[in-house]
Formats: sequence, C-alpha cells, structure tokens
Amino acid sequence: MAEQVILREVGLRDGIQMAKCFLDTKHKLDWALRSQAAGIREMELTSFVPAKVVPQFADAEELAKYLPQLSGIVASALVPNLKGAERALAAGFTHINYVLSVSELHSQSNVRRSTDEAIDEFKRIVALKQTEAGKNMVLGVALATSFGCTLQGHVAPERVFEVANIVAAGGADELIVADTVGYGNPVEVKALLEPMMDIAAGRRVVCHFHDTRGLGLANVAAALDVGVRVFDTSLAGLGGCPFAPGATGNINTEDTAFMLESMGYSTGIDIAALLELRCDVESWLGDERYHGAIARAGLPKTFTMNS
Amino acid sequence: MAEQVILREVGLRDGIQMAKCFLDTKHKLDWALRSQAAGIREMELTSFVPAKVVPQFADAEELAKYLPQLSGIVASALVPNLKGAERALAAGFTHINYVLSVSELHSQSNVRRSTDEAIDEFKRIVALKQTEAGKNMVLGVALATSFGCTLQGHVAPERVFEVANIVAAGGADELIVADTVGYGNPVEVKALLEPMMDIAAGRRVVCHFHDTRGLGLANVAAALDVGVRVFDTSLAGLGGCPFAPGATGNINTEDTAFMLESMGYSTGIDIAALLELRCDVESWLGDERYHGAIARAGLPKTFTMNS
Repeated sequence: MAEQVILREVGLRDGIQMAKCFLDTKHKLDWALRSQAAGIREMELTSFVPAKVVPQFADAEELAKYLPQLSGIVASALVPNLKGAERALAAGFTHINYVLSVSELHSQSNVRRSTDEAIDEFKRIVALKQTEAGKNMVLGVALATSFGCTLQGHVAPERVFEVANIVAAGGADELIVADTVGYGNPVEVKALLEPMMDIAAGRRVVCHFHDTRGLGLANVAAALDVGVRVFDTSLAGLGGCPFAPGATGNINTEDTAFMLESMGYSTGIDIAALLELRCDVESWLGDERYHGAIARAGLPKTFTMNS
Repeated sequence: MAEQVILREVGLRDGIQMAKCFLDTKHKLDWALRSQAAGIREMELTSFVPAKVVPQFADAEELAKYLPQLSGIVASALVPNLKGAERALAAGFTHINYVLSVSELHSQSNVRRSTDEAIDEFKRIVALKQTEAGKNMVLGVALATSFGCTLQGHVAPERVFEVANIVAAGGADELIVADTVGYGNPVEVKALLEPMMDIAAGRRVVCHFHDTRGLGLANVAAALDVGVRVFDTSLAGLGGCPFAPGATGNINTEDTAFMLESMGYSTGIDIAALLELRCDVESWLGDERYHGAIARAGLPKTFTMNS
C-alpha cells in the first residue's frame, strides 16, 4: 500500500484571486464538485477578505451554502483577520486558514499590519476558537513569504522559526509554510522544513509553493525528503502575483499528482479527470496564463496510479 | 568556495536538431562564442549524422573549423556510428559522444540497429580510439531512453546497468545517462544513478534530462543528492521530440543555472548574458517553443552568484 500524500486544491482561492473575470458561483461549485469527483480530498474554497479588496470572493457566503454537497472534501477558507474568521464561521466553515506574513514589508502591504500586529490578530482568532461559536474551528496558519519577499528581499529563517513557535504554542492546529513569491530552492526547503516539523510537534505541516521560477516540483521533492505530506496546488498552475510579471501561480495540481504517483506515493487523484476539468475552467476564465507539462505532453506510456 | 557543477550546453545539437529552419554557421558560431563568454565551459557543438537524415548538421565540418576560437570550451560532437566518429576526428574534435539506446525499439527506430548491434558499433569506435588517428579521443557514451521509451514503454534498469557495465569496461571515458523522452522522476533518478556512480568507477557521469513532463529540475536535484555534478542543458529549453507533441526539450540552461547557484553550487554562468543570447537565438530561429521560468519571471531580488 503506497504512502498517501494530500494535495489541497487552492485554484478557487489563490488561483483565481487575480483573475480578470469574476467566476460566477455556479462555476465555482462545478469546479469544486468535479474536483471532489476526481479524488481531490481537500480544497481551499474561498476567501473571506472584503469584497472591495478582492471582488472575486464577493460570493464567499453564497458559495458556503453548498458546503453540504461537498461533504467528501475538507473545505477550508482563507481569512486575513478576525473579522474574516467570524464571517467564515458564520457561513459554515470549520477549517480556517489565517495568513500571517513573516516579511514586515509584505505584511504591511498585504494587511497594513506589522508581523507582530498580525500575531496579535492571530491571538484574537484563537480567542474566538475558544468560544462556543468557534469550538469546531480547525485553525491553519500560513506563514507567508517564508523563503523571501519581492518587497524586502531576504527573510531570516530565524524569524520564520520564531513566528512558527509562537503560533504553534499559541493555538494553531496546522502550519502552512508558504513560498509566496517562488524564491525557495531545494536546499532552503530542507533547511526550513526539517526544523519546522519539530516545531509543529505533531501538528500538520503543509507546504505552499509557487512555481514562479521553475523550482516548484524540485521543492516538493525536497519537502517529501524531510517528511512533508501535504501540499497546496492549483489546477493549471493558475494564479499570479502583482509583483512578478509573467510569473506562474501555485504549483500545478496535475503535474504534482503525476510526480507523486510516479514516485510511488498515492494521491487518489484521477489526473485525466482533472485535465477535462481544466479545459472547462479555461473556457470559463478566458484569457489567463495556464501552465502545466502534463496538459501539454500527456502522461507517459509507463504511467500507472498507486492505490 | 562553492562546489562546482558543470552545465554542458546542448542547444546547438539537441536543441536545434528538430528546428524548422537551418541555423547558418555564422549564427551557430556566434551562439558558441557568446556561450563561452557567458561562462559556459562545455558544449555539444554539432552532430556527425548524415546531412540527409538531419539537414541541420550539414555544416558540421564547417563549424569545426572554428574550434580554435572556442579554446575556452570543451567542445564535443555527437556521433551515431563509427563513420560519424571518423568524420568528427577528421574535423578536429577530440570529445565524442556516441549514442546508444537501451530500448530495443528506440534503437531500431533511431539507428536501425538492435542495442547489441549498437554495442558492437561502440566496440568499433573504441578500436578507432586505439589507432593513431584516435589516440586523443575522449569517448562519452550516452545511454538513451534509460528511464523508459515512448515506443516500447518500460526499460528495465537491469538492462541499463548491464549496458553501462559493458561500455564502462569496454573503453568509454564518460557515461551519459539520458532520459530521452522525459519519463524519469526523482525516485527513479536516485535508484538508477546511485549504482551508476559505482559502475562508472571514477569515470565522469553526466545526466541528460528532458523536461517534457515538468520534472526536469526535480530530477537534477535528485541526481545532485547521489553525487552527479555534470548536466546537459539547452538554452531556452529548446528541443523537442517527434513522439511527444508539445513536449519541451532538454532542461533549460538558465533555470538550471539559477537553481544550482541558489542551492549554493557554482556554475560560473552569467545568467543575464544567457538571457540576452536567448533573445537573439529567438530572432534567428523564429517560430519554436521557448521555455524557461527565469526568462519569464526574472531572478529573485535575493539572488547572488557563488564563486
């Protein structure tokens, strides 16, 4: 029996947050349902940011109404602050991913708070978790720009570990280590993730890589080497970054599933079904950058899925 | 002092062998000279296949006249047979790469010989090496389709090791392990290359990866882990395969150099200079598929070269 690796599909959140067109709720639901049917077991479904900041997520509450149809999936929502966490809980989400940037400049740019102020907000979300309303909350904390930042450049690993220790000790259920701008390489991935597994002390550790500079899958392989078994991925490698013209988005779901299955891990994902879904997503979204080698070259003749 | 890794540029051979237009000798020379100036230290410069099979290399002898200008580079030539080796030697090359396919079907398709017959041809090249004309020959042997084949599918690692043992014991100076069609993954790379380093017994081992299915750089990282320090790469990821529509070519020189330098290895390569050369190559070749993340997204703000 092959060892399992979980790919958490983030196309409906990270993938479309910069898309030029608003993807209507019906298509978002179709994407989620067909991902579920294709074997995806976790999805970040939407984001509770103010609609005036990211109009794409104006229908977050509306989409949440369909959560009962998605019972085969662990559906999570991103939140930038306490207010977002309250909205997500009220809408019916239990899995919440709070983003906290380790880079001071990125944190200020993203949420107009210093990293320390963002840690204070994390503590307020933990306080919410301890109320009746929040008692079922599973709280992931994403450490954004853990491998560097397009604004401030270098981000000290010591600071990443310091923040990780604070959130792990302070009530986070899961640590999401994010290479927000695609700066990391396999050596740095091992150097950062090995201590992170210790800091997590049994909590789940998720890697969130962007393929901006082509090292996404090499970084996945490095993270596997130090024990990471959950990765954020995006259908068609969708996404982008306002600070990196021409950049790709998250690592590609289809390609990551292909690599993992080839390496002997089991993802449960039907890659052919994802490629069909991808075609429809392209027709819905129109002019975006779609990435991925398997969509271009096909699966090898020698490919078989693991079970 | 950072550990050195050598990238052998194969754009002028593998990269353009399927190009739609004939690249004239002047431009080939310009490509080679500017690669040399950008810090490239090894290049596969051309191929001594019959011009009626691959017209792109009709000027192999003509290009060889400029070898004295390329004294800063170890310039090699691919040969498919003894006749090619004789031509390459006569033209002034000393470094010769003989291609031998481990897949029976690919070997038949490529050179109309079985693998065993191709091994016999290898022995004839070794006999040439033992003559006065061949006394300076440095003979690399490329084991094509070592990770599988689009024609026959699975290629048994045992057969790869068997052939590698024969050529290592039989007079090869260098083993080039080639994933001709981009089937390999990091687990297979380690499983094949670790024994290969033993078989090579001090001879140089080169990995020749194609990025057809997006795993090229992950495979480089895996090969580094087991001690490989030489890789074939192609400017702009040029190249292609008639059996894989939409496939990319070899792993991209700029992206591989970026990954290696980021990981702390020294390549000696000026990536910015390669990006300039790449623009000119695009203007010379016209409508081809050009790949590469660094050309698209740029180097990170945090990037520095190792020395």
